[in-house]
Amino acid sequence: MGNFSSLEEAREYFKGDRFATDNGMVIEELEEGRCVCSMIINEKHMNANGGIMGGAIFTLGDFAFAVASNNIHKPTVAQQVSVNFLRGARNGKLIAEAVCKKDGRNSCVYNVDIRDEDNKDIAQFIGTGFKL
Amino acid sequence: MGNFSSLEEAREYFKGDRFATDNGMVIEELEEGRCVCSMIINEKHMNANGGIMGGAIFTLGDFAFAVASNNIHKPTVAQQVSVNFLRGARNGKLIAEAVCKKDGRNSCVYNVDIRDEDNKDIAQFIGTGFKL
Amino acid sequence: MGNFSSLEEAREYFKGDRFATDNGMVIEELEEGRCVCSMIINEKHMNANGGIMGGAIFTLGDFAFAVASNNIHKPTVAQQVSVNFLRGARNGKLIAEAVCKKDGRNSCVYNVDIRDEDNKDIAQFIGTGFKL
Amino acid sequence: MGNFSSLEEAREYFKGDRFATDNGMVIEELEEGRCVCSMIINEKHMNANGGIMGGAIFTLGDFAFAVASNNIHKPTVAQQVSVNFLRGARNGKLIAEAVCKKDGRNSCVYNVDIRDEDNKDIAQFIGTGFKL
Repeated sequence: MGNFSSLEEAREYFKGDRFATDNGMVIEELEEGRCVCSMIINEKHMNANGGIMGGAIFTLGDFAFAVASNNIHKPTVAQQVSVNFLRGARNGKLIAEAVCKKDGRNSCVYNVDIRDEDNKDIAQFIGTGFKL
Repeated sequence: MGNFSSLEEAREYFKGDRFATDNGMVIEELEEGRCVCSMIINEKHMNANGGIMGGAIFTLGDFAFAVASNNIHKPTVAQQVSVNFLRGARNGKLIAEAVCKKDGRNSCVYNVDIRDEDNKDIAQFIGTGFKL
Repeated sequence: MGNFSSLEEAREYFKGDRFATDNGMVIEELEEGRCVCSMIINEKHMNANGGIMGGAIFTLGDFAFAVASNNIHKPTVAQQVSVNFLRGARNGKLIAEAVCKKDGRNSCVYNVDIRDEDNKDIAQFIGTGFKL
Repeated sequence: MGNFSSLEEAREYFKGDRFATDNGMVIEELEEGRCVCSMIINEKHMNANGGIMGGAIFTLGDFAFAVASNNIHKPTVAQQVSVNFLRGARNGKLIAEAVCKKDGRNSCVYNVDIRDEDNKDIAQFIGTGFKL
């Protein structure tokens, strides 16, 4: 399946991602070149204007990027990310699906779509990774 | 000075940004079109590979963007962000300085430079905001 | 179909896009929220290292973005674009397919995939537009 | 000074960038980690709505990126670019100044500011390069 032989092994390894896991993010699915992560929105994800903080949405996308890319090559680090915030979200669950768009010798690109439970687009995250 | 008449008033308002403040981010300086925010790195900001999670760095940049832009027009929301991760950081303090690059009728652009205590570039964050 | 009642009308209007059309770009398909543009690579698209200049690839993507978005609302202007260059290309035809990802009151987001004749990814272009 | 021992040598080499030079772009200054390129706006740079086509502005930025980065390491190719269009421009001269933000072993980041003759910001271009 990649560097992680099972979903459980990946979950165990990514417990070390304190920022993502302490903030409520979990790995739901993992296969080669693709993964799904999610978080249940709570009041700790809020910003001062009453929406979800952009950093929380980004972190979910970045976590999915990290899981999918480090499954292919570990360690892979994000070099550049572009994110479009498409629609506000206030409660329920956010689901991030990362798909490998390019897997080169030294670099990679993953597209991460972040949607709500009604499958509406919340954000799109495009990450360029560098393979150390 | 803008929508916030003092640094204290801005700090009080942005206590409502639970994601940024619970994760250790604070406002240090605020003036029209510019602000400085910071965070002391701790083990809760780590990723699984032992570095600072990209989401923590992004959140610091996004917080500085939010403070500076909402001082000019409230509410302003991020529409698009591009971030370059320039150098790893592992401990000490990160400082984000947001500067207004464009302040249009409906949209705005802020450049946020994130540096460590030695003034080395850690990341650059470019945020496009929409004025609601 | 949108602001343009036919492919011919759109082609006529976009003759005014001298930069795209003088550089060989043509509209192939147009429907609401989607269009396809293309260019045949020639020596005038080259850079100094013998590949296709990034500006030529970007221009093809930007042209597809302009055609699709101005079909929905005219004038729409690009505010921000992120582009990932995924693979080199040297000859043949490049095809750009623009698809509307978000169509808001004042702003819009289009994803433009640029591929070669073998359907291989050459670049992905994400454009945020503002509706004037 | 880098891979090019003089401005003349760089200009000679970049005659091979047909897309940039045929479209009117020239190198004005070059030093290690920085260069300035420019173009005089003419009717061939226009889009269908009467402004300068985004592709022309991008191409000027990409040309400055290419000249500055290939002076340090040849060949360097753009992997990812983010561009913010800050203000319209219709005539006169556009000046792009590229400055190296990061020069790593395998990758680099250049910030390119594009301004008009009155020194007003027209666009900012952030390019991530890969050193082949």
